[in-house]
Amino acid sequence: MIVVMKTGCSQDEISHVTKRIEDIGLKAHISQGVEHTVIGVLGKVFPELRDALELLPGVDQVIPVSKPYKLASREFHPRDTMVKLNGVTIGGDEIVVMAGPCAIESEEQLLSTAQAVKAAGATILRGGAFKPRTSPYQFRGLGESGLKMLAEVGEETQMPIISEVMAPSDVDLVAKYVDILQIGARNMQNFILLDEVGKTKKPVLLKRGLSSNFQEWLLAAEYILSQGNEHVILCERGIRTFETYTRNTMDISAIPIIEKVSHLPIVADPSHATGKWYLVSPLALAAVAAGADGLLIEVHPNPDLALADGPQSLTFDNFRLLMSQIPTIAKARNRKLAVPSAMIKP
Amino acid sequence: MIVVMKTGCSQDEISHVTKRIEDIGLKAHISQGVEHTVIGVLGKVFPELRDALELLPGVDQVIPVSKPYKLASREFHPRDTMVKLNGVTIGGDEIVVMAGPCAIESEEQLLSTAQAVKAAGATILRGGAFKPRTSPYQFRGLGESGLKMLAEVGEETQMPIISEVMAPSDVDLVAKYVDILQIGARNMQNFILLDEVGKTKKPVLLKRGLSSNFQEWLLAAEYILSQGNEHVILCERGIRTFETYTRNTMDISAIPIIEKVSHLPIVADPSHATGKWYLVSPLALAAVAAGADGLLIEVHPNPDLALADGPQSLTFDNFRLLMSQIPTIAKARNRKLAVPSAMIKP
Amino acid sequence: MIVVMKTGCSQDEISHVTKRIEDIGLKAHISQGVEHTVIGVLGKVFPELRDALELLPGVDQVIPVSKPYKLASREFHPRDTMVKLNGVTIGGDEIVVMAGPCAIESEEQLLSTAQAVKAAGATILRGGAFKPRTSPYQFRGLGESGLKMLAEVGEETQMPIISEVMAPSDVDLVAKYVDILQIGARNMQNFILLDEVGKTKKPVLLKRGLSSNFQEWLLAAEYILSQGNEHVILCERGIRTFETYTRNTMDISAIPIIEKVSHLPIVADPSHATGKWYLVSPLALAAVAAGADGLLIEVHPNPDLALADGPQSLTFDNFRLLMSQIPTIAKARNRKLAVPSAMIKP
Amino acid sequence: MIVVMKTGCSQDEISHVTKRIEDIGLKAHISQGVEHTVIGVLGKVFPELRDALELLPGVDQVIPVSKPYKLASREFHPRDTMVKLNGVTIGGDEIVVMAGPCAIESEEQLLSTAQAVKAAGATILRGGAFKPRTSPYQFRGLGESGLKMLAEVGEETQMPIISEVMAPSDVDLVAKYVDILQIGARNMQNFILLDEVGKTKKPVLLKRGLSSNFQEWLLAAEYILSQGNEHVILCERGIRTFETYTRNTMDISAIPIIEKVSHLPIVADPSHATGKWYLVSPLALAAVAAGADGLLIEVHPNPDLALADGPQSLTFDNFRLLMSQIPTIAKARNRKLAVPSAMIKP
Repeated sequence: MIVVMKTGCSQDEISHVTKRIEDIGLKAHISQGVEHTVIGVLGKVFPELRDALELLPGVDQVIPVSKPYKLASREFHPRDTMVKLNGVTIGGDEIVVMAGPCAIESEEQLLSTAQAVKAAGATILRGGAFKPRTSPYQFRGLGESGLKMLAEVGEETQMPIISEVMAPSDVDLVAKYVDILQIGARNMQNFILLDEVGKTKKPVLLKRGLSSNFQEWLLAAEYILSQGNEHVILCERGIRTFETYTRNTMDISAIPIIEKVSHLPIVADPSHATGKWYLVSPLALAAVAAGADGLLIEVHPNPDLALADGPQSLTFDNFRLLMSQIPTIAKARNRKLAVPSAMIKP
Repeated sequence: MIVVMKTGCSQDEISHVTKRIEDIGLKAHISQGVEHTVIGVLGKVFPELRDALELLPGVDQVIPVSKPYKLASREFHPRDTMVKLNGVTIGGDEIVVMAGPCAIESEEQLLSTAQAVKAAGATILRGGAFKPRTSPYQFRGLGESGLKMLAEVGEETQMPIISEVMAPSDVDLVAKYVDILQIGARNMQNFILLDEVGKTKKPVLLKRGLSSNFQEWLLAAEYILSQGNEHVILCERGIRTFETYTRNTMDISAIPIIEKVSHLPIVADPSHATGKWYLVSPLALAAVAAGADGLLIEVHPNPDLALADGPQSLTFDNFRLLMSQIPTIAKARNRKLAVPSAMIKP
Repeated sequence: MIVVMKTGCSQDEISHVTKRIEDIGLKAHISQGVEHTVIGVLGKVFPELRDALELLPGVDQVIPVSKPYKLASREFHPRDTMVKLNGVTIGGDEIVVMAGPCAIESEEQLLSTAQAVKAAGATILRGGAFKPRTSPYQFRGLGESGLKMLAEVGEETQMPIISEVMAPSDVDLVAKYVDILQIGARNMQNFILLDEVGKTKKPVLLKRGLSSNFQEWLLAAEYILSQGNEHVILCERGIRTFETYTRNTMDISAIPIIEKVSHLPIVADPSHATGKWYLVSPLALAAVAAGADGLLIEVHPNPDLALADGPQSLTFDNFRLLMSQIPTIAKARNRKLAVPSAMIKP
Repeated sequence: MIVVMKTGCSQDEISHVTKRIEDIGLKAHISQGVEHTVIGVLGKVFPELRDALELLPGVDQVIPVSKPYKLASREFHPRDTMVKLNGVTIGGDEIVVMAGPCAIESEEQLLSTAQAVKAAGATILRGGAFKPRTSPYQFRGLGESGLKMLAEVGEETQMPIISEVMAPSDVDLVAKYVDILQIGARNMQNFILLDEVGKTKKPVLLKRGLSSNFQEWLLAAEYILSQGNEHVILCERGIRTFETYTRNTMDISAIPIIEKVSHLPIVADPSHATGKWYLVSPLALAAVAAGADGLLIEVHPNPDLALADGPQSLTFDNFRLLMSQIPTIAKARNRKLAVPSAMIKP
């Protein structure tokens, strides 16, 4: 932590700051510049110290040097984390595609979608049973009966499954059914929920909050990791900006940045990022080109009859076309598309 | 709901859209313009219909005409809502100031603050027992023992109390102690939590989410209102923008806008909006000048020793100075500062 | 400037950085922390150095300590700048109101508006002759004939006048007629234009860019100041955020922040900040309460017939009502409303 | 244009609106809904009408149906525009890469860079002679002598050249030397400058403004097109958001969106979008995968000695590596990398 004093501060003010630092057992290291005196704080600092020092007379600003997250940081954990489940590895050489309907509506809808996406090359089945909805008057999902359908269809098609959990008290219930617990963007800073999914040892897919920067996102991951759950997958799904043509703005740079600063796998969700089906394929390909470890794609047999998020869902045909383009893109990045499990073990 | 067809769409496409509208029991009303054909949808539309129609061939855009919130809307409830508790009315002629420390640290800290803010003219005591923190390594509050202190100090100083609730499972516990349940910005779209506070009949102060627009904010209020709880107070506390000099950007226009589109009272929290103590008083005065029904202000006996958010807390002296300026501003808006209860009933 | 090295960087990397610093005649000051080695750069640094050092192996980040603007900074010029013109002082004890139509349409429109706003207490007359328009198909202003009308009406009503200049080649022309040159938000980083208005010695009102932070805004002022023109007035007129209910989001905190970091006067333009007439008065009052030195307000005899920005213009009646509320607000800040000149000298 | 009346508006208010519409020679078409009466405006509307109608009593909102840009719109010009210069086509089947230093510093620097990027497969040479700089104390470019160097090096290496023009009065000068005039992000709404480059018949590369939405960007293009210059290339270079880890946030969705709504070619500038060299290649590949027609890349022989924007410049080695990955990505989109001209005509 570095304390920058104001131009023209007094010697007393400098002494006051160094005394305060030493009073709590840390060392102060003064460096006299032309315009500014700068005081380095040596020792184990805690985040609240920044606030305390910033209020002292003569202080211009306090600059933290250490990153506030540790477990999520590549500096402290240089090797890539690979999240493994039922023969699928997320974060390795292969691009993993998770596909399915936004909301589970019926067994027929789910089964036909699962079969179609698996045939096209998807490895993991997604489907929402508990749906966060902006309005209290919208369809909120089938709840546990939806989870049951998802589990059955996953079993039948031999696909691992992923679904969202919204309430801390539902974590055990959802964890009973699914292979990956999904935390939605609106819950990225629901710290109680993060603690709870951290306590399970299930893989967790953590979506970036609509207005969360990289540090806040990794601190949210830190909540889960600090509970002893190392199986965290990050998911870029768009941030909120002034541009309203798309539902959100997919921050494509998140992919190489997370790869640089963290060891956790990163996937992209172009369906929620854009809210428009015709943008999903171009952005899915862009994400793979940028180095994403996987994709989360909404697919629906009849998007215009969907109970949720129809306009951002791909038809079976569009999904097949997208999947046919991924291997070439992956190849340019020395990677390949994961092969669905059932095709491996007959 | 209005469907705008693309320039040069075919007659078949128009018929397809009108058929779809009529199939679900609504009426379609066609209007032929120079460049665009426009189809009005008459009858009780549901939000999902927009998505469905937008996917049909030949459709350029679908524009919703009705507002998605009803109970929170001034159109449906023209008279101002006043939230009353223990002799204090929020949303009437008087400006209500809620003040206290960000986090409850000890009985001494809380009591001295309560006495100081009350003497200066604050009506309601605020204090955090459950604290949402960006990092898992920061102080998360005293929990129930903090609530007990708050209740005791509130009793002793004869001040109603407000505190945040973060977990759906804590709602009953927190509601047992406090007069107003506070929903933090990060939980504005924690729909499970909104349902739970809606089920209590306690007043709820609902902070605006960091990246929430007015419609989303009022829909969050609608979650609470639709559970039968009419005692909702809205609180502007800054939104996230590209400007990082302040923690957030206080959207001062929220005050007259909410007054126009909703009947719910609106207060401002300049402490969280700015994150810097020297901006709190100017922005508090600005909020009153813009028409706010009240203020939420952080005050701490020793801001530079605070366990949370010290830099945005006012000292007792600064708070007194602020309170001395409010009556004149209020007068320009034909309002006055609420007088603390104990001064009324001796 | 401070160079933070990566955790675990090598001694060679540290030496390489210090050598590079010393090669250009500066001194390096090493400070060894627990996690990070930090190197202070002492001497006269130039902005490009940051970029150069950031690319060296082993460097984590480079943090500038000095502010990049000097002439606009309060640190280097502690006393308030007051901009004086024809008996009006902007930046002193008095609140100065500049009012008039968005676009000059005719002599009748301008004269009736000038007379009305002056009678209500406005001191300076505003009016656009060169209008920046988002679309090439919109009314772009009357040009020089508009300036002539403005000068005549200003003469007749004894009001100083302000108008926008958009092209570097028009600066002399506009400066011939007006008392204050206005630089619009879209031109805040039109550096050629800034240089040109800097070369005149006329007062310049510099609007904040739609997506400019405080540092960029003050650097734009620095362009003008560094040409020797000290008469710069800053104007907050809203920034672009995700909220689209208002045209822009007025950043009310800009007022106390500019007052703290700069000596230049700061005024607010609630008309452009909101784009809606019914928000203009509440935000104008808020700006004065927050400490603004003045206001820029659009007034039109018949807003619904205006050729530009009608919806954000006040009628004469609404403007009179607003002006009647300002003195009380100003009083709470120990200031008063400036009295129009002609009322002083008969 | 559609006028939505307030719930419960009076018959008089409706008549007043329709009368106003008919008074200016347009037709009004009333449609009575359950909650709202909606009035369609038929005929040739002008943008100002929206403002005028919005102010009438009883009106809730006015919704424009037509897009305000015509010449830039795909609806009015369905076929792709291809911009051709010296044997290079932008907007056709081939991906065109424009590369070179941010600022021209010397003939040696420019020539060595030109030779290196051409050998790696770049088709067009970029280099800045007039540099927009946030601070008046930064290097502003070599001006005309830089343009001369650029022209000579372009001649020597047989590469078309592109360079930025900042001042309306410099347009003729810059146009004399370059093949493509570049309009920077800060000048996207410098309408005087847009008019001037529109009057030349030279190809113009128009960068998206930092806070400009798609409509404003296309309206800026419309300024150029409406002067009779059809050779406009759009360039996505990042928008300003709350995320400050990158200099800007590259809006990858801009690529497929522009392709859908406009016939103009679209290229991406990942160097300015991110400000960090290690993000340039992943985002360049992502842009090609998303369908971009070309790339604008900063390359410098010694990025850590560059006078401008060193941290975002690729070294020759990094650029060669990037160029080697593009053909595979292009192939997945049924496109190929353009072959530099000199290799065609010996």
